[in-house]
Parts: sequence; structure tokens; C-alpha cells
Amino acid sequence: MNILDLIAKKRDNGILSAEELAFIANGAADQSIPDYQLAAWLMATYLNGLDDQETADLTLAMADSGERIDLAGLPKPWVDKHSTGGVGDKTTIVLLPILAACGLTVVKMSGPGLGKTGGTIDKLASVPGFNTNLSPEQMKAQAKEIGLALTGQTPSLAPADKTLYALRDVTATVPCLPLIVSSILSKKIAGGADVVVLDVKCGSGAFMETLDDASRLASKLREVGEKAGLTMRTVITDMDQPLGRTAGNALEIKEAIQILKNKETSRFSELCIQLAKTALEAAGVVADPAFAIASGAALIKAKQWFAAQGADISVFDNEDWQVAPVQLEVFATESGFVKSISADIIGETVVDLGGGRRIKTDTIDPTVGIETLVHIGDKVDQGQPIFRIHASTEESAANASEKLALAVKLSTTEVIARPILMGSSQPEFKL
Amino acid sequence: MNILDLIAKKRDNGILSAEELAFIANGAADQSIPDYQLAAWLMATYLNGLDDQETADLTLAMADSGERIDLAGLPKPWVDKHSTGGVGDKTTIVLLPILAACGLTVVKMSGPGLGKTGGTIDKLASVPGFNTNLSPEQMKAQAKEIGLALTGQTPSLAPADKTLYALRDVTATVPCLPLIVSSILSKKIAGGADVVVLDVKCGSGAFMETLDDASRLASKLREVGEKAGLTMRTVITDMDQPLGRTAGNALEIKEAIQILKNKETSRFSELCIQLAKTALEAAGVVADPAFAIASGAALIKAKQWFAAQGADISVFDNEDWQVAPVQLEVFATESGFVKSISADIIGETVVDLGGGRRIKTDTIDPTVGIETLVHIGDKVDQGQPIFRIHASTEESAANASEKLALAVKLSTTEVIARPILMGSSQPEFKL
Repeated sequence: MNILDLIAKKRDNGILSAEELAFIANGAADQSIPDYQLAAWLMATYLNGLDDQETADLTLAMADSGERIDLAGLPKPWVDKHSTGGVGDKTTIVLLPILAACGLTVVKMSGPGLGKTGGTIDKLASVPGFNTNLSPEQMKAQAKEIGLALTGQTPSLAPADKTLYALRDVTATVPCLPLIVSSILSKKIAGGADVVVLDVKCGSGAFMETLDDASRLASKLREVGEKAGLTMRTVITDMDQPLGRTAGNALEIKEAIQILKNKETSRFSELCIQLAKTALEAAGVVADPAFAIASGAALIKAKQWFAAQGADISVFDNEDWQVAPVQLEVFATESGFVKSISADIIGETVVDLGGGRRIKTDTIDPTVGIETLVHIGDKVDQGQPIFRIHASTEESAANASEKLALAVKLSTTEVIARPILMGSSQPEFKL
Repeated sequence: MNILDLIAKKRDNGILSAEELAFIANGAADQSIPDYQLAAWLMATYLNGLDDQETADLTLAMADSGERIDLAGLPKPWVDKHSTGGVGDKTTIVLLPILAACGLTVVKMSGPGLGKTGGTIDKLASVPGFNTNLSPEQMKAQAKEIGLALTGQTPSLAPADKTLYALRDVTATVPCLPLIVSSILSKKIAGGADVVVLDVKCGSGAFMETLDDASRLASKLREVGEKAGLTMRTVITDMDQPLGRTAGNALEIKEAIQILKNKETSRFSELCIQLAKTALEAAGVVADPAFAIASGAALIKAKQWFAAQGADISVFDNEDWQVAPVQLEVFATESGFVKSISADIIGETVVDLGGGRRIKTDTIDPTVGIETLVHIGDKVDQGQPIFRIHASTEESAANASEKLALAVKLSTTEVIARPILMGSSQPEFKL
């Protein structure tokens, strides 16, 4: 097989076979195909597309391009969850212990964050001692022990994705549905899951800004995942306003812990419950996620999890860890009803504060971030605090304050927020 | 300016400005843009195209990506000629001395051959001593002295083309009209020409197999060349049968010398005269190319040229140089009229014999080649020789003989060959 023929085939709008796509995935994984040829193929694929069968074949080939975690021997079902990324999205940290507490086996690989949408791995890394690099063997052993393990991307799983993802980033071939789908699902399959719940974010703080785009991605993920043999569930959830109260690494862990301790409820906790219900239904397990929280079972599981990965579990007892030196509140300059809160601006401001990466090699300040003290629909009075900035310096706090002043729009009349859950793969399933 | 934005613009079918195309050409020339980004841009360009203005802008940007030969001070007009390549195409070697003998200044850069269509540089390199590597300064000095200079591709002229051409070869983006046009014309412009005659070959031995494709390429070359300020003439000529009697490096030089000595006439010599008439008309010079040959002026110019570039000019006196050790004739197995002679098979067989390159690093045997002893329309008798193979071994000659048996098709009824000249940019101009 010759890569030049395969590039030409896709260039001429041909259909690639499973063997041909495996040739490309393996050549990307072991770097035997030069970057410039992969780049030409990626652009041809961007412009001419892949059909569902090709996308499924590419997904499986990418999953097979490296090691696959074999969860044989662990209690079924093996569940994974993925979010397409949004501002303040700490869902994984609450959801995983709930699912494990309900008896599922949860093994998850997470990527680092880039740009305004943070990464779960960066959030967990803010917890002193938390080890985010587990080997496939460690993952399996830990999941066997406590039903739950999470790691950052390892080079041994889906290495084709590592090469292709990095190339897409520098060749203007990122926003391509079949390539997005195969990138997401190949890692889920390599991670060993057989049930996958996908949370597609929609709105100004997300990659997919319109419901149409989000629905298209959700459908494609579901179709291709099913073709690849997974039990799939997709939900589309709101990312027009940030998710929950906090955006920033340690701040989000602290918020997640409050939910697990049943000390706080919000749109965010509602989403965690909904996602858990979806996962449990897909797994065929009858259990009540709200009770897992209320009973303390999810909190115990979370502590087991953090401890198993080396973290200092005193973070569950108080909030006096990874505290930023400067706090600054931003106040409403007029009264009214909150019409919009720009997740986009808030995400960008967190990056400005040092809480995210502009380029892959940036280091992250775990302490900084933004608390959003109001939500869409809330009535606010002039002078009421609407944001609390956590910053490393007075200057960066002042700069953030200026930017955040533009993030909230008020209305003189009542406003109703759109629901957190905008769509689901199972209309018949009562959430 | 950011290459990622320019890739995305072409990906989304946008129109690139002259400044943006210059950014790409300069980035290709100095290799500041990585190959994988150029490859993605090339594929986006292949699939979405460049309009005539973009193609002209890219052409000029590529010409400006390195040194440009400044012919100021030399007698105008400055003429260059280009052929899109065919089997047995030694036109340059006859045409250039004719034009210089008629008073034009001819400065030409030629590329090496690849595959079945040989390269002028390889042909001249078969002449003992011929130096095919002149610097821009040497080119100018020699053209001032004798009106004529020719060199192989130099890294200082149109370096953007060197990078892009090599990348196109390995990314399935070769057959793309705007990229072909800008590659050809950028080198003509960098070489200093203001009058350019383009010979677009058409048929089984050429890159463009149909008259439609050849016409499209010819029109595009003319339009873009004129936009870039050149005086352009294009002709479309037959390449269904090999051009002239010989295919193979030293053999073709020997044939060209026979034409220059006025000892042979053929479809090939007819083409040389036609191209010379076209160039002289474009240059506004009244002169008779047939007389330049008949008077011996072209032969004298050719000797001056070969001598100026270091060649042993005794090659003009006899044919006992670069002779292959084995000669083998192929005979007609039946009688009839020649219906077709596959330039394609003959070109491939020359490569098999060692007279061409399959990959760029192959070395060439200058002695080998094929003489085609009949032409389309000729009546042949059973047992009459139709090919003479010049080979390095008995074995390779036998293999060639087997292949060539398939190259000629006979008809029981009379056949009329299509004319050598199939089309011209100047229908009103009497050739």
C-alpha cells in the first residue's frame, strides 16, 4: 500500500477501506508516514469528508494503533464519559465517584486543557499529590480495587490520535466532524470502555456554538460509536453561561467537593445527576445518583479515588489549600435581571489570570480563577457582587475586573434561562 | 501574517491577496513555513483552486522568492521557450541556436527529466564536457557574448518552486492547473525572459493526454503569463507518437545535430521551424528559420554555444561518441499501415534501458535509447525493421524488444497521421 495513492483517493472523493485507513493510522502512530503526507491527507479529508463507515473504520484503526486497556475480569459494564469541553466543566470529578458508588467500573483518560476550556487533568493536578499519570496496568489494578481510575493521555494509548491531533492543530483541519469523532472515540475504545456517555457542550463557551452544530456532532458520535460496537448515549448541554459557580483549577475541585458533600445544589449538580442517570440507564443498572450523594457513598468513593492516586485527602475537609493571594469582587453597576453571562469572556479571563494555557507549553497557576456569583435569570441590585476574582497580583485582578465588566448583560424585564439539558439521545428516557 | 489563517482561507474557498501569496512563496523559499503546513495549503489549493489573479500573483511571488536574472544591456527581446515534456523532445537543442542566429537573446533554465519524459539537461549532459550548471552571472555574460545560454535549475532562481514542486510530488498535488502554471512561469520570469513560447504536448506520451486538457493548460498559461507582464505564445503539439526518430540522451543530441546540419527533415524538424516562427513573430523580428538552418548559421551558433559551455565540439563531426555496446533491431511481424506508435511504451522502455529516472536519485546511462524507424501513416512490410534498440546488455535489449513489439499497431487500410501542430494561440498567424 502506498500513502500517495491513498491521498489521491481521498483527494478524488473516493472511499477508503478499513485496511487503507489502518495503514494511515499505523503510519501516523509509528511516524513512518511523514507529517507533510498526513497533512495533505487531513486537508483532503477535511474538504471531501469521511462517510460513517470510514469514520468508524478510522476510529477503530486509531484505537488499535497502540495498546488497548483490557478490562476483562472487572465487573461489567465498563463506563467512560467525555465532554467536548466548556468553561467551568468539572463534571467528571463529581460524576465518576457517583457512578463507581453505584457499582459501575469507570476507567477514563483525560486530555490537558488548551485555551478557554480547561482540562480535567489540570484541575486534578491542583490537588497536592494527585498523580495524573497512571500506566494501563495501574489503571486496571486501581479500577479493580475501587471501581474507578483516571489518567492523563498516555503515549501508549491511541498514538495515532496524538500525531494527527497535533498536526490538525497546525494545518487548519481541526473543525472537521469525522476527525473530531474519530479522535474522541478512538481514545474511549483504547481505554477499554463499552458504554460511553458523551456530553456535547453548546454555546458561546463551547466549541459548538449553535444547537444545530452540536446536534450534528452528537448524532455523528452516536452513529459512529455504535458502528464501532459501543453502547452510546449523547446529551447536549448548555455552555452559554459558565457551568457552576467557579472557573479555575483548584476552585473547581473545591466546588465539586461541595457537591459531593451535598452542601450545594446548582445547575451544575443537576447536570451531574442527569449524566449519571443517563450512564446508569445505558449500563442497565438501577440506582439513584441523588441518593449516592445524599447517603455519602459518592463522597467516600471520591476520597478512595483521590487517596488511590496519591492525593492529600485533607482537601475534603477544608478550603485552605491552593488559595490565590488576591481576591477582588466585581459589582453590578445597575439593577436588573441577568440576561447573559459570557462563558467565552470568563474562560478567556481565567487564561489571562494564568489559569489556562494559550500554547501547549504554558504552565498553569492552580490557584487563580473566577467565581460567578449570579446566573442567567437572577435579579441583581446595583452594587451587588457578581464576580469574585482569585488572582496572583493586584494588577492581574484589576485587568480581569475590567474584562468581566463586559461579561454580564442585564435586562429590565424578567429572563428565563435555557435549561442545562438541551437535548438527549433518548427522548423517551425520563431524566 | 499567519500561515494558519492563510491555509484556512483557501480551505474555505477564499481569495488570497498578492501579499498573502508572497508570504507563502517566501516561506516556502526560506523554509520558514514547515512542509506540513505547505502540504495542507497545497491540498486546499488543489481542491479549491486559484483564480487567474491569484495564479499570476503566486507566479510573480515565486519568481521574486530568489534571484532574478537581469538581462538589462543585452539586445531585446529576451526569449525563453518551454515544453511540457514528451518522449523524444529535443526541440530546445535545435530551436535555441536558430533563434540566436536570428538575432534574439535566448536565456533558458531547464529541469532534469523524471519518468518517461526526458529532460533537456540530461540530453546535453551526455555531450562530453558540457557544463549544465551556470551561475546567473555566467548566464548573462555568455548570452551577451553569443546570444544564448542554458543552465539546469539553480537553487538561487525561484527557490519557492523548488520546495513546492518537491512537496507536490509526494502529496498527490501535481496535476493542478494553477500550480503547474505558476511553477512553469515563475522560472521563466526569474530567468529574465519577456517573450515566452510554450509548447504544450498532447497525447499518450505527454502529461496532457487529451486536446481538451492541453487547451485548458495552454489558455491558462497564456492568460496568467500575460497578467504577469509576459508576451506569450502557446502551441499544442502532438505527442501520440514519439517526437522525431530517437528517444535517449546521446541519440537525441545526434539527431538534433543532423537537423542543424540540414541533413535530415522530419515532423521533428518541422516543429522546430514552427516554434521558431512563433517566437520570431512574438519578438517582432523578421527572419526565416529555415534559412538559418540552410545557410549554416544555426549550426555555427550551436557550435559556439556548446563550446561556450565547455563541450567537446567534435560531436558535430561524427557519431562515434557515447555509443551503446548493444544494438538490436525489432522487425514488423506483418505488413500494413502504421496506425499508432505508443510514445508511452517507448518512453517507459527507454527508462527500463537505463536512459531515464524512476526516482530523482537514479543515474542515467547516456548511451541507451530507441530509434523509431517508422511513423504513423507509413506503409511497412513484414520483416522490415521498425525499431533499433541501443542497450547496455543483450538482456536489457531483449526485454526492450519484447515490450516494443506491443508499441506499434498496424492497419490494413491507409492511415493519415494527425498533424504535429494541433493548435496555436494565434489562429490568424500563418505558420
